[in-house]
Amino acid sequence: MRISELSAHAGIPVPTIKYYLREGLLPEGERSAPTQAAYGEAHVERLRVIRALIAAGVSIAETRRVIGALDAPHESAHALLGAAHSAITPAPDGSLDLSAASGVVEGLGWKPGMCDEAVLHEVARALRGLESAGFEVPAATMPVYLKSIRDIADAEIAGVPTESAEAAVRYVVLGSVLVEPLLLALRRVAQQVASAERFGRQQE
Amino acid sequence: MRISELSAHAGIPVPTIKYYLREGLLPEGERSAPTQAAYGEAHVERLRVIRALIAAGVSIAETRRVIGALDAPHESAHALLGAAHSAITPAPDGSLDLSAASGVVEGLGWKPGMCDEAVLHEVARALRGLESAGFEVPAATMPVYLKSIRDIADAEIAGVPTESAEAAVRYVVLGSVLVEPLLLALRRVAQQVASAERFGRQQE
Repeated sequence: MRISELSAHAGIPVPTIKYYLREGLLPEGERSAPTQAAYGEAHVERLRVIRALIAAGVSIAETRRVIGALDAPHESAHALLGAAHSAITPAPDGSLDLSAASGVVEGLGWKPGMCDEAVLHEVARALRGLESAGFEVPAATMPVYLKSIRDIADAEIAGVPTESAEAAVRYVVLGSVLVEPLLLALRRVAQQVASAERFGRQQE
Repeated sequence: MRISELSAHAGIPVPTIKYYLREGLLPEGERSAPTQAAYGEAHVERLRVIRALIAAGVSIAETRRVIGALDAPHESAHALLGAAHSAITPAPDGSLDLSAASGVVEGLGWKPGMCDEAVLHEVARALRGLESAGFEVPAATMPVYLKSIRDIADAEIAGVPTESAEAAVRYVVLGSVLVEPLLLALRRVAQQVASAERFGRQQE
């Protein structure tokens, strides 16, 4: 189909599609004439993924890297998970002290070398953010975080489909990125429910 | 102290402090002369909170609203939680279908009217994001999300300090915002650990 048909089919304006092409998010169509290209179902599908990532608050640059992870030849679901994470994780920050972070993630079953440096740096960065605001996670709460988050990750990794590499790629890459807003939103609802139960709902 | 001393004390450049003053993030100092204002420990403390929120990726506009929640007269820890959440939650989106979201959050113990509309809309928005990318949370995974997130919220709400209103405000407002990056980073580490255990660590 032509770009105008792709636009109608995907419900996305032509200038937006051209922007995604320029940004390298969408692969070029097949040249059918010097000024015309043909697009297929793969483009429609890719547009859905791009829109979902951007709607989830992923930046254009990160979206490009996540898309790259979807397209990259991959050796294993594990390598793929690393690629998905590094697409959305800032580069390691040498100024961070990793000892506190290492101590915390040991509670997840982590051992040295078991995950990418960048992801460990993310934990250190989050801990530094809490510390610099003078906020301390209560001693009784941290073990609940570690157990609950490990339970979540276990369920997610147990669910990685193994019947096709393509299904595994989609699941790992999109699941790690797109589920984040869901978990944060669920936490806010759960906090309000737990708070209503503890303190009583007040009319505001 | 003067603005130059506040700058030295907090380790933040004077132009940045002036920017925060203009943006309404930092309250004006007490006028000591027509062109001079005096700042105190409360300003140092407030600067720490501003820096931590911004470092956590909270926008200037959202930081202003979180700060507003810290300053607002509040009636209860529960009302405060609502104020903190609405500071960082986009306005409700009328185009969202809340029925699927309501069905999901019932698994958290939610009943109609038990939380702010905006927070429920966040769940609906996250579910729409997953759906529009063609990603489905496996049926076995969703109950684990709900149980784990409810456990996290229970521990957090149980930890709300009740000895002083100020301590409760800090805990609720900063805890709900600043812990988010920690939980997401822990999830990435836990996914890599669970993945290494399931698929075996590969040298990349």
